[in-house]
Amino acid sequence: MSALDQVLARIDADLDASLDRLFAMIRIPSISTDPAHKADCRRTAEWLAAELAAIGFDASVRDTPGHPMVVAHDPDGKGKPGPHALFYGHYDVQPVDPLALWHSDPFEPRLEKQPDGETWITGRGASDDKGALLTFVEACRAWKAVNGGLPINVSMLFEGEEESGSPSLRPFLEAHRDELSLDVALVCDTDMWDRETPAITMMLRGLVGEEVVITAASRDLHSGMFGNAARNPIHLLTAILAGLRDADGRVTLPGFYDGVKELAPEIRAQWERLPFDEAAFLADVGLSIPAGEAGRSVLEQVWTRPTCEVNGIVGGYIGEGFKTVIPSKASAKVSFRLVEGQDPETIRAAFRAHVRAMVPADCTVEFHQHGGSPALALPVDSPVLRKTLDALTREWGREAALAGTGGSIPIVGDFKRLLGMDSLLVGFARFDNRIHSPNEKYDLSSFHHGIRSWARILDALSK
Amino acid sequence: MSALDQVLARIDADLDASLDRLFAMIRIPSISTDPAHKADCRRTAEWLAAELAAIGFDASVRDTPGHPMVVAHDPDGKGKPGPHALFYGHYDVQPVDPLALWHSDPFEPRLEKQPDGETWITGRGASDDKGALLTFVEACRAWKAVNGGLPINVSMLFEGEEESGSPSLRPFLEAHRDELSLDVALVCDTDMWDRETPAITMMLRGLVGEEVVITAASRDLHSGMFGNAARNPIHLLTAILAGLRDADGRVTLPGFYDGVKELAPEIRAQWERLPFDEAAFLADVGLSIPAGEAGRSVLEQVWTRPTCEVNGIVGGYIGEGFKTVIPSKASAKVSFRLVEGQDPETIRAAFRAHVRAMVPADCTVEFHQHGGSPALALPVDSPVLRKTLDALTREWGREAALAGTGGSIPIVGDFKRLLGMDSLLVGFARFDNRIHSPNEKYDLSSFHHGIRSWARILDALSK
Repeated sequence: MSALDQVLARIDADLDASLDRLFAMIRIPSISTDPAHKADCRRTAEWLAAELAAIGFDASVRDTPGHPMVVAHDPDGKGKPGPHALFYGHYDVQPVDPLALWHSDPFEPRLEKQPDGETWITGRGASDDKGALLTFVEACRAWKAVNGGLPINVSMLFEGEEESGSPSLRPFLEAHRDELSLDVALVCDTDMWDRETPAITMMLRGLVGEEVVITAASRDLHSGMFGNAARNPIHLLTAILAGLRDADGRVTLPGFYDGVKELAPEIRAQWERLPFDEAAFLADVGLSIPAGEAGRSVLEQVWTRPTCEVNGIVGGYIGEGFKTVIPSKASAKVSFRLVEGQDPETIRAAFRAHVRAMVPADCTVEFHQHGGSPALALPVDSPVLRKTLDALTREWGREAALAGTGGSIPIVGDFKRLLGMDSLLVGFARFDNRIHSPNEKYDLSSFHHGIRSWARILDALSK
Repeated sequence: MSALDQVLARIDADLDASLDRLFAMIRIPSISTDPAHKADCRRTAEWLAAELAAIGFDASVRDTPGHPMVVAHDPDGKGKPGPHALFYGHYDVQPVDPLALWHSDPFEPRLEKQPDGETWITGRGASDDKGALLTFVEACRAWKAVNGGLPINVSMLFEGEEESGSPSLRPFLEAHRDELSLDVALVCDTDMWDRETPAITMMLRGLVGEEVVITAASRDLHSGMFGNAARNPIHLLTAILAGLRDADGRVTLPGFYDGVKELAPEIRAQWERLPFDEAAFLADVGLSIPAGEAGRSVLEQVWTRPTCEVNGIVGGYIGEGFKTVIPSKASAKVSFRLVEGQDPETIRAAFRAHVRAMVPADCTVEFHQHGGSPALALPVDSPVLRKTLDALTREWGREAALAGTGGSIPIVGDFKRLLGMDSLLVGFARFDNRIHSPNEKYDLSSFHHGIRSWARILDALSK
């Protein structure tokens, strides 16, 4: 029996004890946004540090202006093969309102047998993020128990403010740059592809947010008196915005696609094999005709193609009835999703140049900046990615999906920008886990196979 | 001395008495919107009917569900040369709030000498519309006094609800169609061109109002998750609206300009002679570059060219900050100003077809209709127009302006649609008369030369 096989057997045998520990953690109501639970947050941090210390980590609770961090290092880690990994998670949870909608006490976790054979672990934080973070801790526990140590060097960072905007995180990363700038971050905050298919989220699009305000006349005008002769800023704005995309859905800003790489053939091939139903994806929101770039699949569009969306527009009279006004001002909020190879400030400048070129000299335009962050992507040929993919495929019996995500996961950008560290995002949650909602649950199979997956990944990364 | 010269001399000699009558009328606070002044409104109607009876008209106060009408006919009018004219005015006035801003009692009219030599008649209704309507009544009085009768057949209609939306007017016109369907309406509700130049308003643009609501997805979407793949209704709407005009400012709807006539050369020539400063017109509202159709003067554009304006647009997130949403809906309010030769319902149908052609099959579009009225224009070769123009030019010593107006004057449309009668709009008010505001005034020269102008017009129409 290989070292890994022994670890996996140990995980199976120890599952009830692992569940007991998860239950113990869920029972501490670590609601970070509620000052009444300040002590509970600290208690959870201390509980976690004690558990890590118990399995041989140098673990400490570190004060911040808010809730404390927990940092742990493996005293035996030095000299291990493979990358030095920093596992990140958070021990705080969302509030539980409305409490009346919960079927049982959110802080008294239960196992609930489901008709499909699955078992749910219920309770606030069961999935987000106590269950998820313990998959990693329990994997480390099993490795240490069976083999006396981990296959690679592992450190851990847990925060207690993720559900309240992580105000202390960036200052903490900056203050502990040397301690925490390791080879790779492991983040366990994402979903499975579907019930049977694990996923690695390897691409996160970047974002440029811009608000543009066009002012024409110095006051609102009567469209009968001035219509046609006086510039209407809504006309200007619609022409500007309509001009951002061509008939094929491509963004028209000069240079917008410079540096944008085509999808690697192996990823494209994998996505074509993924169980993804474009029609169902659109039908779920009442649509049937894909928009966006002609000739690109929906997955390609939302994960790896840059785009432009108008998120808000307003001008003139918008109340009941009708008013024949030519407004003085019209404005829009526009966002660009960026992919690897695009620089946010270059895109912003191109957008502003496009707008300015269309605004006549007697009108003015103001811009308000709303965020700018580059895309993040784990290189397709990264050994960490390849090894993790293999480990997951072995555990789940089917090829793990290499996924993108259109949304943002701030910690990943922070690790990259502040610590120069790529992140590997592997998660075992499911879409239907009701995180942030009443009756949050984590599937027992997510927890069990999640622990086993991390055990395999730690092994794979050492090879 | 011609009959007209004698009438003009009589007007000059009688000016103080004419002013006394205007003062008497202003002193009755006929505020139509205020139920407390219901009896004052009736009293004003009765005062007016009595004045008309005193100069030989068959005048009657006619009840309506609201304030009464005054209708007067000339018992000697039958068989007179020229058109049978219906003069229209209103005896009710606007409220006077805020009273504290008035320099003197709004219902105690005064003459106020101005530094530039002008004299103001102050008081609520001095201009709108008591002073204006009396210019016509006093002209009739002078004709009757000097020559024992009027040169043409004249009837009059005065309402007491103009400042409260004229609820009784249309039913009254319909109920008295035979009595009131005469050859031409004379309306005295418009402005001079400038202090020295009288004006005939001969063109009123029509209007089609449309509200369009586009629905794409069945709910608001996260633009990171769905952007590019899910249709954004703001994109659709901006493309639809931007597509309504071409680069030269022309409306692109098929058939939009069908039936639209070029400006008659003599009108164009007159407009080129008018003291109108395009640059100042635009500078007054903070602009300097004419918008709209290339190669058309501002006056031409606002008076005689059809156009399209977006009067309101809204979609997505419009609050503070930023939200990366793809909204389910976006909507706009669009108006078309029409000129002679355009049919409102044809234009509405063309607009809706343009929108529908651009909305994909999985999105829906709703339209809400907000009014539709054709343009009204007095034919340039109308004898009534020509004769009035000559009469005004003789009185004021300079060529009267043949003006258009972009705004709407509902009575003119009602006369046309319900009674089949064109209107001749001649007014002696000035832009700065503060109608509807505190310290309303009417220039004594407007009143005096207004009376003389009508005396000349009555004479001219008989020739």
